[in-house]
Amino acid sequence: MHTTNRPQQARPGRPASSHEDTTFDLAPEFVQDIRAALDDPDRATEAREQVQGLHYADAADLIERLDEDRRAVLLSLLKGGFNPEILPELDDDVRETVLDAFGYADYAALVAELDSDDAVYLVDHLDETERAAVLERLPETDRTVIEQGLSYADDSAGRLMQRELVAVPSYWTVGDAIDWLRGASGLPEEFTELFVVDPRHRPLGLVRLSALLRARRQDRLEALMDTGLEPVDVGMDQEEIALLFRRRDLLSAPVTDRAGRLVGRITIDDVVDVIDEEAEDDMLRLAGLSETGTYADAFATARTRILWLTVNLGTAMLVSSVIGLFEATLEKLVALAVLMPMVSSLGGNAGTQTLTAAVRGLATRDLSADNAWRQTGKELMVGLMNGVVLAVLAGAAAWLWYSDLPLAGVVATAMLLNMIVAALVGMGVPLALERFGVDPAVASSVFVTMMTDMLGFLAVLGLATLFLL
Amino acid sequence: MHTTNRPQQARPGRPASSHEDTTFDLAPEFVQDIRAALDDPDRATEAREQVQGLHYADAADLIERLDEDRRAVLLSLLKGGFNPEILPELDDDVRETVLDAFGYADYAALVAELDSDDAVYLVDHLDETERAAVLERLPETDRTVIEQGLSYADDSAGRLMQRELVAVPSYWTVGDAIDWLRGASGLPEEFTELFVVDPRHRPLGLVRLSALLRARRQDRLEALMDTGLEPVDVGMDQEEIALLFRRRDLLSAPVTDRAGRLVGRITIDDVVDVIDEEAEDDMLRLAGLSETGTYADAFATARTRILWLTVNLGTAMLVSSVIGLFEATLEKLVALAVLMPMVSSLGGNAGTQTLTAAVRGLATRDLSADNAWRQTGKELMVGLMNGVVLAVLAGAAAWLWYSDLPLAGVVATAMLLNMIVAALVGMGVPLALERFGVDPAVASSVFVTMMTDMLGFLAVLGLATLFLL
Repeated sequence: MHTTNRPQQARPGRPASSHEDTTFDLAPEFVQDIRAALDDPDRATEAREQVQGLHYADAADLIERLDEDRRAVLLSLLKGGFNPEILPELDDDVRETVLDAFGYADYAALVAELDSDDAVYLVDHLDETERAAVLERLPETDRTVIEQGLSYADDSAGRLMQRELVAVPSYWTVGDAIDWLRGASGLPEEFTELFVVDPRHRPLGLVRLSALLRARRQDRLEALMDTGLEPVDVGMDQEEIALLFRRRDLLSAPVTDRAGRLVGRITIDDVVDVIDEEAEDDMLRLAGLSETGTYADAFATARTRILWLTVNLGTAMLVSSVIGLFEATLEKLVALAVLMPMVSSLGGNAGTQTLTAAVRGLATRDLSADNAWRQTGKELMVGLMNGVVLAVLAGAAAWLWYSDLPLAGVVATAMLLNMIVAALVGMGVPLALERFGVDPAVASSVFVTMMTDMLGFLAVLGLATLFLL
Repeated sequence: MHTTNRPQQARPGRPASSHEDTTFDLAPEFVQDIRAALDDPDRATEAREQVQGLHYADAADLIERLDEDRRAVLLSLLKGGFNPEILPELDDDVRETVLDAFGYADYAALVAELDSDDAVYLVDHLDETERAAVLERLPETDRTVIEQGLSYADDSAGRLMQRELVAVPSYWTVGDAIDWLRGASGLPEEFTELFVVDPRHRPLGLVRLSALLRARRQDRLEALMDTGLEPVDVGMDQEEIALLFRRRDLLSAPVTDRAGRLVGRITIDDVVDVIDEEAEDDMLRLAGLSETGTYADAFATARTRILWLTVNLGTAMLVSSVIGLFEATLEKLVALAVLMPMVSSLGGNAGTQTLTAAVRGLATRDLSADNAWRQTGKELMVGLMNGVVLAVLAGAAAWLWYSDLPLAGVVATAMLLNMIVAALVGMGVPLALERFGVDPAVASSVFVTMMTDMLGFLAVLGLATLFLL
């Protein structure tokens, strides 16, 4: 959530480069040394200088890795000389401690130094009281820009975009543009293209700087510009934006308001953060985790996880109640209690495989309404083929174990049935959730494993009741 | 795996834009219409023109979505006018059918038209026979470049980099550079920076085009350049490169050979593909899937999954054998067979939560040797807290069900024990795999759920044997 790369000061004697294969990561010995320096009041100045010499991303990393006491010492040392670029790089929980340490006024001063998209991001991540307190302490112009940014929907182009861009009229020549660029003030620190706009400030195309540089001074911008623009509506969802950038291999895109006027630009480095976030979200949601929160404390982490686990307990009870229906069968044939987890475990794993492929396919649009039937048919074939293999193996195991051929037949049949059900629910649950507008990664795995568990036990115990007793 | 965005032709009457919230995705009606046109020999020319009017990413998407027969019809229509940019966008399995349809000579001609990184990528994804056949049919210069690219390790900077870049000597002025850029031939189609090199072609810094444009003609490049370069060694792993780009918010980085000479550049759009791939890999590997392969046929898909499922069957048998040890206990108290899956299921889910957080933490470097003990301690606390909550709930359920307080006590104690074990193995397995240089996502979940299942059953049945019989 920060702007393009900016010129970096040389970092003499970079302490971070001692690790052999990572020249940019913090070396554990360096972190240890900083810890020692923070414990020793005599080395305070040295510690401050060391940390101020770091790249902002490394400084953020270091702050995250310190325990609370040393973090407080470091923050008090850095007060007054804190690089605001560090803030967007910090984990939410750690950033909260910076706010606590610095107070509203100093925090607002840091926010004011950042580009508009970063400033909006930081203010957005405060709770209501804090947000009001920080906004109140911002200069009026910054406050207006941030409030406008916050008025756009969460995860929309309006939140993601930078207002800083270079727009020029289409009747200009290359010479006009170059002369103006040399003299103009208030341009963004970095840009890779000029946006060409009509008199109503609607984007007509963009001229890449590499094309501008190679043209003659008298060439008209209109002749150079790429008109294959993909204008992004200010309300477009960030997931859509990420897909657009990837599909079109874009480096940047203009953002337009409802009237089609150019109001900002989105650059690929911000999109990289979105891509990361979306992939991470899917992966974590599949496991029932709402956030990473590596730096959240144990109590907060436990609280975010217990809800999912309680839902799981409910589904596990449903599964147990299925087994409970067959207590009479189990009493007569206790071998079933030994064998049935084999069937349910395999069903759960096969279902999770299908589910994960489906969730990923939906995210990348490889799976859509268009080919959902064909892909489901394929998954059924896969379930059938692997089901046959596993049924033979599991049946053979049951036979070797108990020398009971009918029992082995029940286990094998139940395994085959469960693999087919696993394919159906592994595809059906995420497709149904997507259809109803729910994120298919959320809660899918709990439903899929519940169904494969229930069916697994039901098949083993039901078939046994029918054919073995 | 392709170069930066390039000027796109205007696409009149873009058929892709009918879908309401996605202006860049293929509309299902458009895909349907193309299918109909391909079935009708009279509409062949129309179909060809429609597809040729698409952006290469959309054309690739369309080709993927067609069934085999229509795909063959379309490929034969496109032969001779096939946009080579489509190839890197295709799924491996689908690209294989393009090679089959076009033959080696035509395929080689398409490869020769691409930028070096794309060409290397395509040749790399052929099997040995095909690779030899395609290389043989390439012009000598292309072949040499590709063979050199292939000589770098898989997933290294050498594979990822483009050879096309702009390098200038440090004694030049801005005017020198602009005059040379206007006249030079053979420059890359797009670039966002000049690399400044010393007489031995070692990179000294880079000058962003936005800085170049805003400087005066007489300014020296040396004064403008950003020396905070992060030169990437040609052997650096792509995962490291992705971390470097994200941590440093880079748009591009120079690649140097062992002697420190500039041999190529890596741009952020290629890194985006790497980031995607790494996140996808972790997610899929956690579920025991080796590849997406949405377009692989059912048999190939079944084959890639059966190995993992067979491993799972082995672990499930181990789990069953734990239950088998307690057949005498089960015979006396069949209620245990009903209740024990509840304990093992919750342990499995809690273990997967911890595991997923750990795998993600290792990938983003939030979890490292540095804080592994502290994070493990935190997970233990989380397991303990959630274990107490779940033990009370599960114990209460068991008591309501069977009105047997000692039985409820056994279930509750087993639940608490299993939640603590889930935290330990959820952290321990990925950390141990990472320590031994194995991808922590691979095979982790099968071990974690095996251990929580075994411990869950062992705890319920063992405690019951000790205290209830």
